[in-house]
Amino acid sequence: MLGRTGRRPGASGSREDIAAAARRLFADRGFDAVTIRGIAAEAGVDPALVHHFFGTKRQLFDELIELPFAGDDVLADVLGPGTDGLGERLVRFVLNRLRDPATGDAVVAVLRTAAAQPAAARRLREEYTRRLLEPVTHALRMDRPRLRAALCSSQLLGIALAEHVIGLDPLVEASTDELVAIYGPTLQRYLTEPLPRGDAAG
Amino acid sequence: MLGRTGRRPGASGSREDIAAAARRLFADRGFDAVTIRGIAAEAGVDPALVHHFFGTKRQLFDELIELPFAGDDVLADVLGPGTDGLGERLVRFVLNRLRDPATGDAVVAVLRTAAAQPAAARRLREEYTRRLLEPVTHALRMDRPRLRAALCSSQLLGIALAEHVIGLDPLVEASTDELVAIYGPTLQRYLTEPLPRGDAAG
Repeated sequence: MLGRTGRRPGASGSREDIAAAARRLFADRGFDAVTIRGIAAEAGVDPALVHHFFGTKRQLFDELIELPFAGDDVLADVLGPGTDGLGERLVRFVLNRLRDPATGDAVVAVLRTAAAQPAAARRLREEYTRRLLEPVTHALRMDRPRLRAALCSSQLLGIALAEHVIGLDPLVEASTDELVAIYGPTLQRYLTEPLPRGDAAG
Repeated sequence: MLGRTGRRPGASGSREDIAAAARRLFADRGFDAVTIRGIAAEAGVDPALVHHFFGTKRQLFDELIELPFAGDDVLADVLGPGTDGLGERLVRFVLNRLRDPATGDAVVAVLRTAAAQPAAARRLREEYTRRLLEPVTHALRMDRPRLRAALCSSQLLGIALAEHVIGLDPLVEASTDELVAIYGPTLQRYLTEPLPRGDAAG
């Protein structure tokens, strides 16, 4: 996986300017509505320079919206201290990254694009659920790790959608500490408590 | 608000066929990727007939994706029996509608379209949160009804997104009873229990 600073750390500063402009536009509008020309205008450079650094719009998108954190970091930060407070640490990890434009724009860009494009939906499924959450649920050695990861995804993606795409004011205005205290117990339950099986089984 | 069967109940059956085809396509692809011609082909009619019944694509979308249930039904079904089991009844109400193509397609269509278009995001904010959930939280007479409605939205929209747009298998494969048993306590807590205020206040 390429780092966020791209594959040419020695290149001119405008490469990182273009990347930030592209992340911002993809997050605001989703893949389809963004053009190379629009990214170039946002970054204040010539479109040819965007192509030079990144190739096609698809290649640019794929490179920029790589998961902005590795599964290893999640395991160390979130699971390292043990099971107590695990849900709160997971929510805080995700909220910190969602609320930092450098990483949040990439997540919101994938979310917007996933709504329209099956390939981006698959990326959310594979990278965000499999690479981010399933390592956590597998490491816990609880039953049904894939269902637990999906439950956590449904709440964490719902927060991203409700705050950053739908713009529900009470969430936008809440502090990270407040949301951690509210959502932490939900995630803690999905991760570590027995899951009921409905009417079918005990 | 117009009912799902539209404003010309006496018209030919093909009007309802067109409506169902349009809902299906908007749910699969979102607003931008759907054309009147595509809807006509899906319904097996001439595009002129689509225009005749519904006007422009925007007018068709606005009419078809009206909230497929009224706030009054929610209050009666979900709140009527009292506070016990409220979270489970709310999740079941929403899952039943999401998993029924006649109503679920409209919700998924708005969700997909909201990801790309601010007008549809506003609709989700206004109709689904304000008209569906805020009446419930206001009727409960708990503190912070708008925050409680937003918390419920974040989990319910997250379920819709994770199951119907991202396609997370463990959720797709779970029975409604199982998801009601798992998600019910989450919604119950967001609706009826004291909400922590983070580090700021008690």
